[in-house]
Parts: sequence; C-alpha cells; structure tokens
Amino acid sequence: MRATTGQFARRLLPTDTLTGDIAAELLARIEDAPLISPHSHVDARLLASNTQFRDPAELLVTGDHYLTRLLHACGVDLDRLGVGRPDADPRQVWRVVCSYWHVFAGTATGYWMAEELAGVFGIREELSARTADDVYDIIQQHLGMEAFRPRALFERFKIDVLATTDDPLDDLEDHARLQADGFRVLPTFRPDRLLDPEAPDFAESVNRLLATTSTAATFGGYLSALEQRRQYFISHGGVSADHGVFDTWTADLSPMEAESLFARVLSGTGDTNEIRLFRAHMLFQMARMSVDDGLVMTLHPGVYRNHSSATLSRYGANTGHDLPVTTTFVEGLRPLLERFGLERDFHLVLFTVDETTFSRELAPLAGFYPSIYIGAPWWFLDAPDAIGRFRAAVTETAGFYRGSGFIDDTRAFLSIPARHNTARRADAAFLARLVADGRVSMAAAEHIIEDLVDSIPKKAFKL
Amino acid sequence: MRATTGQFARRLLPTDTLTGDIAAELLARIEDAPLISPHSHVDARLLASNTQFRDPAELLVTGDHYLTRLLHACGVDLDRLGVGRPDADPRQVWRVVCSYWHVFAGTATGYWMAEELAGVFGIREELSARTADDVYDIIQQHLGMEAFRPRALFERFKIDVLATTDDPLDDLEDHARLQADGFRVLPTFRPDRLLDPEAPDFAESVNRLLATTSTAATFGGYLSALEQRRQYFISHGGVSADHGVFDTWTADLSPMEAESLFARVLSGTGDTNEIRLFRAHMLFQMARMSVDDGLVMTLHPGVYRNHSSATLSRYGANTGHDLPVTTTFVEGLRPLLERFGLERDFHLVLFTVDETTFSRELAPLAGFYPSIYIGAPWWFLDAPDAIGRFRAAVTETAGFYRGSGFIDDTRAFLSIPARHNTARRADAAFLARLVADGRVSMAAAEHIIEDLVDSIPKKAFKL
Amino acid sequence: MRATTGQFARRLLPTDTLTGDIAAELLARIEDAPLISPHSHVDARLLASNTQFRDPAELLVTGDHYLTRLLHACGVDLDRLGVGRPDADPRQVWRVVCSYWHVFAGTATGYWMAEELAGVFGIREELSARTADDVYDIIQQHLGMEAFRPRALFERFKIDVLATTDDPLDDLEDHARLQADGFRVLPTFRPDRLLDPEAPDFAESVNRLLATTSTAATFGGYLSALEQRRQYFISHGGVSADHGVFDTWTADLSPMEAESLFARVLSGTGDTNEIRLFRAHMLFQMARMSVDDGLVMTLHPGVYRNHSSATLSRYGANTGHDLPVTTTFVEGLRPLLERFGLERDFHLVLFTVDETTFSRELAPLAGFYPSIYIGAPWWFLDAPDAIGRFRAAVTETAGFYRGSGFIDDTRAFLSIPARHNTARRADAAFLARLVADGRVSMAAAEHIIEDLVDSIPKKAFKL
Repeated sequence: MRATTGQFARRLLPTDTLTGDIAAELLARIEDAPLISPHSHVDARLLASNTQFRDPAELLVTGDHYLTRLLHACGVDLDRLGVGRPDADPRQVWRVVCSYWHVFAGTATGYWMAEELAGVFGIREELSARTADDVYDIIQQHLGMEAFRPRALFERFKIDVLATTDDPLDDLEDHARLQADGFRVLPTFRPDRLLDPEAPDFAESVNRLLATTSTAATFGGYLSALEQRRQYFISHGGVSADHGVFDTWTADLSPMEAESLFARVLSGTGDTNEIRLFRAHMLFQMARMSVDDGLVMTLHPGVYRNHSSATLSRYGANTGHDLPVTTTFVEGLRPLLERFGLERDFHLVLFTVDETTFSRELAPLAGFYPSIYIGAPWWFLDAPDAIGRFRAAVTETAGFYRGSGFIDDTRAFLSIPARHNTARRADAAFLARLVADGRVSMAAAEHIIEDLVDSIPKKAFKL
Repeated sequence: MRATTGQFARRLLPTDTLTGDIAAELLARIEDAPLISPHSHVDARLLASNTQFRDPAELLVTGDHYLTRLLHACGVDLDRLGVGRPDADPRQVWRVVCSYWHVFAGTATGYWMAEELAGVFGIREELSARTADDVYDIIQQHLGMEAFRPRALFERFKIDVLATTDDPLDDLEDHARLQADGFRVLPTFRPDRLLDPEAPDFAESVNRLLATTSTAATFGGYLSALEQRRQYFISHGGVSADHGVFDTWTADLSPMEAESLFARVLSGTGDTNEIRLFRAHMLFQMARMSVDDGLVMTLHPGVYRNHSSATLSRYGANTGHDLPVTTTFVEGLRPLLERFGLERDFHLVLFTVDETTFSRELAPLAGFYPSIYIGAPWWFLDAPDAIGRFRAAVTETAGFYRGSGFIDDTRAFLSIPARHNTARRADAAFLARLVADGRVSMAAAEHIIEDLVDSIPKKAFKL
Repeated sequence: MRATTGQFARRLLPTDTLTGDIAAELLARIEDAPLISPHSHVDARLLASNTQFRDPAELLVTGDHYLTRLLHACGVDLDRLGVGRPDADPRQVWRVVCSYWHVFAGTATGYWMAEELAGVFGIREELSARTADDVYDIIQQHLGMEAFRPRALFERFKIDVLATTDDPLDDLEDHARLQADGFRVLPTFRPDRLLDPEAPDFAESVNRLLATTSTAATFGGYLSALEQRRQYFISHGGVSADHGVFDTWTADLSPMEAESLFARVLSGTGDTNEIRLFRAHMLFQMARMSVDDGLVMTLHPGVYRNHSSATLSRYGANTGHDLPVTTTFVEGLRPLLERFGLERDFHLVLFTVDETTFSRELAPLAGFYPSIYIGAPWWFLDAPDAIGRFRAAVTETAGFYRGSGFIDDTRAFLSIPARHNTARRADAAFLARLVADGRVSMAAAEHIIEDLVDSIPKKAFKL
C-alpha cells in the first residue's frame, strides 16, 4: 500500500475522501514547520561532540528500549542486541533485528523505523533477513558522510529547540558549547535520585549535592542546594524541571516535620511510610521552587521502574522493564494545588501512561486550573491510534489550548522527525473529523493545527 | 464546513455515504420528538416566575460552570465572567467570552453554544472579539420579546417533562404553580447535605429536617422525617431521588449500630471511618426508602467536590472545580444489591464520570440486575465522542434497553435542546454503524432510535 | 441491510470502500481455516456421548448465561428460561426468548445467535414472538438428523483442536474416549476450588485430592498431589492449567511459612489476610509447576463471582451474576515474575475483563517478558467493537505476535464458529485500516492474518 506516492503522502490520514482531503489540507500547513522538542532524552554530548554515528546498530537499535524490549519478549537475549555489550558485532545485531522485523508490524516502533529509513536514508524496503545486509550497507555508507553527523541532521530536521534531560549535578558544559555554537539545546533539571530515599545511593547523592554549596546537611541546606542547582540550569537556558515519580501524592509539611523526616531518610532509618511522605513533600517543594524560579514543572508519574531485578543487575536501568501502573491525579495533587494551583506563572505539565486519566482527571483538571497543562501522550501512548484516543478523550472537556504540544521524549535521535510527523498527522486526522462533521470550522482548524506545533508548546514550556 | 445546508443537516453524523445516509434516516424519525428531561438542574423559579432573561451574560455565561471553568483555566478570573458579581457589566462579560472563544473549539460547550445561537436566535456567525457586540445586540433584542421568556421557550423546545433538582426542605411552591399552569415540571429529592456528616452545617440541616416533623433527634426520627419529605415530593409529582456521593460504598447496619452512629456524627464526634460508614448506611437506607415509596434512585458518584478551597471561599460551590475520581460499583454496591437488587419495582440508575466503568461494571451490572439502569454519559462525558464511546462500551453487553435514556443534567436552560439534539445525533450515528456493517437490521434500528427518546427514559424514570 | 448477499459477506467489515476491500481480501485468506479452540467450557461428555441435542431451548438458551442474564435483567425470571428447571417446556422457553429478542440488538449474544441460526440452520429471519414457533420447528427438525449430532457438527465446524475446562479430580474418561475416536479434545487443569480456602467445601476437596495419592495432609503432600494430577492431565493431552482468581497478587513464601499457612487455612482458622496470602502463594506455586511440567498457565482474574447470593442459592453458580472488578497485573504478579518471568519455556497467558489494562499493563508486560502472552478479549469483551478496542490498545506496544490468538471460552457449543468468525472479521477490519493508512504493507498483513488463526495460538498454547 505504501508503494504509490499518492497513498504514501496520505499515510495515517483518514481514508474516506472528504475527511482525508481536509486532513491533507491541514497537514500541508504544518508538515514542514520547525520542530519544537521541549522534552527529550537525547544526550547533549552527542551534539556537542558531533561525532559520526558508528553503525546502524548503535544508531537505531541498542539504545532504543522501545525496540529491544519487544525483541526480548520474542525470545532474543538483550546481549544479542548489543545491550551492555559494546563489543557486539553491529552487523550481527542488525541481522537479528531484521530477521524478527515482522513482530513490529502495527507497532509505533515499526512505523517510526520505516519513516526514519525512508525519510533520512531514502530506504523504502521492508526490513527482513533478506534485506538486512543491503540496508545495513546503505546506512553505513551514509553515516560516513558529513551530512549525517548529528549537528547536520539537527539542522536538516529543522529542530528549533531541543531540551535534554539532565542530572542536577551535571556541569552542563555540552549545553554551553552548543549554545555558543548557535544550537538551541536546553538542559532539563531532573532531580529524581536526589528526592527519592529509595533511589540507589540516595545518601551519597544528597551529600554530593550538599558539597556543591558547602551547606550543612539540614533540610534547609538541602533545599537551598537544590535551588542553586536549578539556578545553574536556568543560567544555562533550562526552562523546565522534570519529575519521574511512582505516584502523584503530595504533602505540605511544616518545616519542623520536614527537617526531622529528612534526617531519618538521609540516615536510612525512615520506614516505608516516611519515605513515601518525604517523596510527597519533595514534590510539593519542587512546585514551590517552580513558583519561585519559574521553571516549568513536568510530572511523569505511574511507572514501576526496573520491574525485573535480573535484567536490572545484568543490563542496567532503562532496558525495557519499566512498566505502567494505575495512576490518579485529583486526590494526590490536591495539597500541591491548594497551595500553588492558582499561582499566575506556575506551569505544571501532567503526563500519564494510564490513559484512563485523560478524560477522568487530566482534562477536567486542566479545564479549571490555569497552572495545569495536559502532557502529550507519553511513552507507550505516543503512537497514532493512542494519540487519536488522547485527543478524543481530552478535547471535549479541555479543548486544544490546555495541552503541552507534542513531546518526543526519545533517546533515539533519528526518530525525532518521525515522531513529530506522526503526531502532526494524527492531529490533522483528528481535527479533520471535527471539521467534516461540522463541529469546527475549517478556518478555526487551520489556526489550531498551526498553534499545536508552535504557540501551544511555546506557551506551555515558556519558550 | 457548516456553511452549506446539506452538511449542516448532517452535523455529527458519519461522513461515509452509506453510514451517513442510514444515520440521517434514523435521525429524521426523532429529531423533532418532544424532549423528556428527567434530570436537570434548571431552577423551577425561572419557569414559575417567567421573568425575561436579563442579558446574554446571565443567560449564557455566568451560571454555566462548563463555560466559566475553561475560561478560568485560560487565565480569565471568574470575576470578569460575572461569577459572584451581579453588578458586572454584561456586555463586558460577553466581550471577554467572545475574545477567548477559540479555546472552545472541539469542546462540548463550544458545540452546544453554536447550536443554541443558531437554533434559538438564528445566529450562525462564529463568536470572536469582532462579532461580540453584534451578537450581544441580537440576543438582547430577542430577550425583550415575549417569545423568549422561559415558558415560551419551554413550549417551543417541546419539553414534555422537566425534572429539577431540589432541596428536601424546599416548599415546592414553584412546582405547584407550574403544574397548576399545565407545565410538567417535577421536583427531584436531593438529600446530600442531610446525609453527609461532612457537609457544611450538617447538624443544623438535620435539626431543621427534624423540626419539620417534630420528631425526636433519634435515628428513627431522622429516617421518618426523610420519608415524610419524600412523600411531600411525591405528592408534588416527584419521581426520583438523586444522590451525589464521593464513592459507592454501602453498608447494612443493625438499628442499634445505626442509632449509635447517628448520635456520634450528629454531635460531631464521629471519626473519618464512622462518617464514611454513616454515609454508606444512608445510601443503603435511601435504597430501602425507594423500594418502599417507589421513587427512582439515581446515583452520581465519583466527584471530588470543591477541589479548590480558595475558589470555594471566594465564589462558592458549583463554580467549576468539582473533579472526577476513580469510581467502582460492583463491590461497593453489593450490600445494597444483596438486599434490594432483585426487588421488582426498584429502579437504581447509575451515572459515572469514570468511563472505565462503562464496560467493566455498569453494563455487566445492568445486564443482570433488573433494578439497575445505566445512566447516560454524565457531565464531562455528555459530548459527541464520549457518547459514542459510551454506546460502544455498554451495548455489546447490555444492549439498548438497559439504559436511562438521555439526561441533560444542565443548569443552562437554553442548552437543553442542543444537548438532546447532540445525543440524538450521536445515537443515530452509532446505530447507523451497526446497521451498515450488518449487526442490526434497519427495522430494528428504527424501533430502537424511537424508544431511546421515548419509552426507554419513561420506563427508567417511571414517567 | 443483511438482506443482500453482497453486504452480508461484508458484515463487521469497514464500510468505506478502500478499507472494506482490503478487509475482505484479508478475511478471504482465513475465513474457512480450521478452528483452534485452546480454551472453552464445552463439556467433553457432550462429544463423548454424541447424544443428539434435545431441543432449541437446551441447545441455545438455558446453559448460556450470556443470554439468560440479559433476559433476567429485563425482568424474566430464570425459571422461565429453564435455568434449574429441567422440566420446563422448551417451546415455552423459546417463545419467551423470542418475544424479548429486541433487547439483544447490538449485543454480542444477539449477533452470535443470528450467525448461528444462519450458519448452522440456514435461518435468516429475525427472532420475534411472531417467528418463534416456526424457527423452533425448523431447529427441532434439524436436531433429529445425524448431521446435527455433536460429533458431526465438530467436524463440520472444522474444529482442529478443542480444549475443555476440567476439575483436577476428573477421571478424563470422556477425553480418552474422544482421543481414541480421533477427536482432538484436550482437558485443561482448573484447580480453583483446591487453591481457594474460601471456595465451598475447600477442606473436603483438598482431602479428596490428598486421597488420590495417599499423601499426608502436609503442604508438601498437597503440592505433590497437585503435581500428580497435572501429570495425569498431561498424559491425557492437557496443554494448559487455568486459574480463575479474584486478583493477581502473588507471594513467594518460605516452605515453613507455607506449611503453617496451609495448616491454618485447611483447618478453617485462617483469617482474611492469611486466606489471601495462601491464594497468592498458590498462584506462585502454579507458576512453579508450569515451569516444571510445561503446562501453559492461563490467568483469568478480576471477577467477583456469585454477586447475588439469592440467585446463587436458587439457581447455582455460573448463572449470570459474576461481575468484573478493577484489575491490575504489574504489581501483583511481580513476585511470580521475579522468579519465573524469564524462564525459557514458561508461558503465562493473561486475560482480563478490565479493558483499562490492555494498554496500561498487558501490552507493556507482554512487550518485555518472553513468558507473557496477552489473552484475547474475554467474556464481556469478546464482541466486535471490544475486539477492535483491544487490538488498538495493545498492538502499538506489543504488535500482533505477543497474543494468545482467539479463545472462544464458551459453554455454548453451537456458538464456536460464530465467535471465531466474529474475531476473524474484527481482526481483518483492524488490519485493513493499518494497511489502508500506510502503516502495514499488504504482504505483511496477509502473513499476520494467517498467523493469527494458526501459528500464534499454536505457539502460545504449545499445540
């Protein structure tokens, strides 16, 4: 079906003529618009060093846990995909991937890969054991060219701004270098391991944090050190602070309660309830800091991290076994919102991997609190059908203007244009349906589709 | 797209020709059928006094929290919308609304407003800063005419029956007057504040209730007073009792347990668990009374009321910050259903703002218990796409005949026809798909579409 | 609409021409493929004895709780449907069903019945009070023919393999006889009542189990007896063990803890927490046994069994009042998965009646753990629209190859082909959309549609 150009241009758009035509017209207005990427996991070093990509396996496979996890589920050991094995033969890795490629049919990963191969390398063949070597060779040849180095691709992709995700203690030298060179690559403050007493080496991390400011190991000193690191990020262009949490519970504690709790969790004597309470209070403190310093607060809750201990110990974190759990927002966030929800310049972007919250909590919350923005469909949900469900679930309550705009959230640099293009097509398809059945005028839809990739993310992320 | 009449007539209907034609044919059978509104929040006084609407702001904006909440989220203070400020300049309020109108694109509120302006006032222009004054003037001119007073509109809207929602201590004189004048406007018994120890002024309210019957402040006296107020509602045409609750837990207590619990919560000494248990038992008692006196029991659970204390204290309740929470039915309602679920004449209509319950609990429950009816999509879910999801989620298990029929549930009198028309179109669209792909015969669909707006609500609400 | 042959052939397929044509082409490849039924509730005795079906009521009504429950909800006493009344006049039962037939419009049951009547008996008329007697007579005439005995239908339906669900203490003589006669009818080990201390007659059942092996009433003896019964099932062709549980919590206990817990629950002195812990540990033990003996482990959680005590005591279990509850997997299964999730030959098929888990938990789990397979939509969810939602929810994360393939899960023997055909059509419709909008190539879709009814269920169930 993808063979004929006409149909290829219409991919992901509705197949009925009326709606498809409207969608194509809307898409045409934005398909080539610059990419705003206010939340990604691309490593700034990649762009700072501008080293050429080594091979197709490193570029497209090993670091992409979306891809390695499904192969693992199909019985392919992560070793065979090069995970934790920098010495793996990249051609062998690629062959394994291609020989299993049929399992990706219908997945977001499969779709993005096809888009990437076509869009970046001009490769339209389907991956298979038969085509593996040819495709490998074509990609490898391209990677040797100047035009396929990271910075050249950054420009070719028309990335207007890219925010990475960084450790609070990072020196941000890569970002400084990139900005000096005219690339708008912004750091994002991600302090999870400093806020969660159950994180590995929590006490050590906190002590390293405290050492940056020579403050005493008091709660006040700890907060002050966090505030100073946030300022450091802001001075390097940072616009947001990101929080990956298990649940959304927040708590407003008195300074004395907080001080004593801090002492207990830092010394490792806090029990489960105290640990949970500490996390809840730190989420509250992060909101307070965002109100004070203006960093947009983004929340990514509801993930059970490192579900498989054996995989964690053998291959490390972020290797595909983080799993969604039931998530709620309305009750857990109430203490935070009671204090900060109506603050004028506070922005709180709520993401979810539990799509039941779209219509039940996120749209109703963002339809009342001026501080709340609905995060774009995240992780397991940033695929064409899921984006359609997201729009259908939130729009009737919250409209188009209470969202964050699309977030690619990816470690896979090459997938950025494919992911944005997918979201643009899904949004065009959704809007076209509302135009076709008389809910939105074409003129309004034309404004909306443009705002979705420009003013909406810029407003939500204060860009 | 709404410019050409042909397409306008097909709004909300499927755009593929086959299904669209079937939907249009089904819709034609009921588009002009009288409206049955067995659950609304219209104030009976409005119709009793028949005073003309003051201005477009009062008529269409200030009291409609669907509308004011989204503007609030977009940074518009509720003051500027006239909420809590009867002295606000209505033209200024209207201008603010119009200047933000683009944020309502794709929302139910935006769609209904367009329908109301077109259907009631013949206004087809899109609202905007540019059109604000013209539209204001046209509406204002109409409001001065006799034909735009509440009772004239009631007749023009072809409202067959309208149920309001009323305090148990209301004297229902407005209803008596309306019925004397030939308008079928029925009161609904809504005793929340008399059943929830955490409601403001609970003890005072209960004492006022007890004073109506001169009974002692015992649990028995309290039940008896509630029963007598229900009788008073019945004698004024009431057919249902409505219950807004946080969760659905019910409990069957012994008279002695209940008596002692009542004493504790009335004196304000009950703890959180006792308060919750009291509420659970009172829901059980409400079912018992419905079995005894025949009032249909409607349940609206799963809403966190008054989420923003600052907004509550400044603007009062029902100003847009009630928010849905996770809801379940199967476990919580079991004590109630064990006792009353198989009672012949008991009707329990279950509404939800958590759409996960449609396929998981509501359809399975209503597909077994003769007493249970599935409430129409409620509040954040009574919009075109959400209605489609509702029908898809419940029909395969429970069919079309175990539902309540559409409920407009609105405070916005003018929106009643738009809301019913939207639901009728959504139902026609859903049914047309089942006809087009061979699941339901056209003859069957013709019966169903008629029953959905007539015999089905009449049966569920004993009208 | 079902009148014209052309449209009838296209039932359940998309109505837009492009997508409909693709779907029809895909369907044509598998519509007549043999049926693989690795999980059903058909009674092996039916096929072993090959007695002719008695009458339309016995064949199509009384034992089918999908059907009797909705009639019950509509006010028809189960007595009138012959439930618990073998002496009921079958023609009267049939007349009652037909006179209420309109309530099944849009339901899965209604659709299957139409398919069965057309496919097995050539009856295309809609059921109604008017047609009841004619249809009854036609069916009754057919039932007298040799070609309508169970074994003949088994062959006509092209059932390749059928797994029943059986008590661990069953002698499996019916299965032995069927296999001797060349019918591939396999037993499934379903030990619920031996694992749940709250099951009726738990202690008695366990003692009967222990008696089969003359082992002592120790936990070790109990495990050993279960293992031996599993071996007995394996020796009779069994490939899977099925577990109906309230929730998915699992626990890894030390032998000493388990022994003491066993003693307490067997003696009836265990409290609620101990009972829950015992069940959690036994689910863990079942996984351990599956790892040891290779039986595929299938899990059916999240059902509140026997919700109506009055109905249970009057009509028995499985009479329509089992109801879904909120279900989760990621946290509850973790102890089990920590120990067995990466075991090479372990297969754990997870079913759900809470569709929120499809995208949130099942697809992510099966997209990482090689042992986990996503069970086909189950029970209230095995209908055309629900199957579409299932595919849309899981495919973008887990693709097509991490599922179980379709499972009919039915007690209604005659409905097997209708159910498989429905699923095949729903899958063709889903795949066609991905082809039409450019996500999957036609060539890939052709492989997938064939694998879905052949290699995929064979792999998941080790057939």
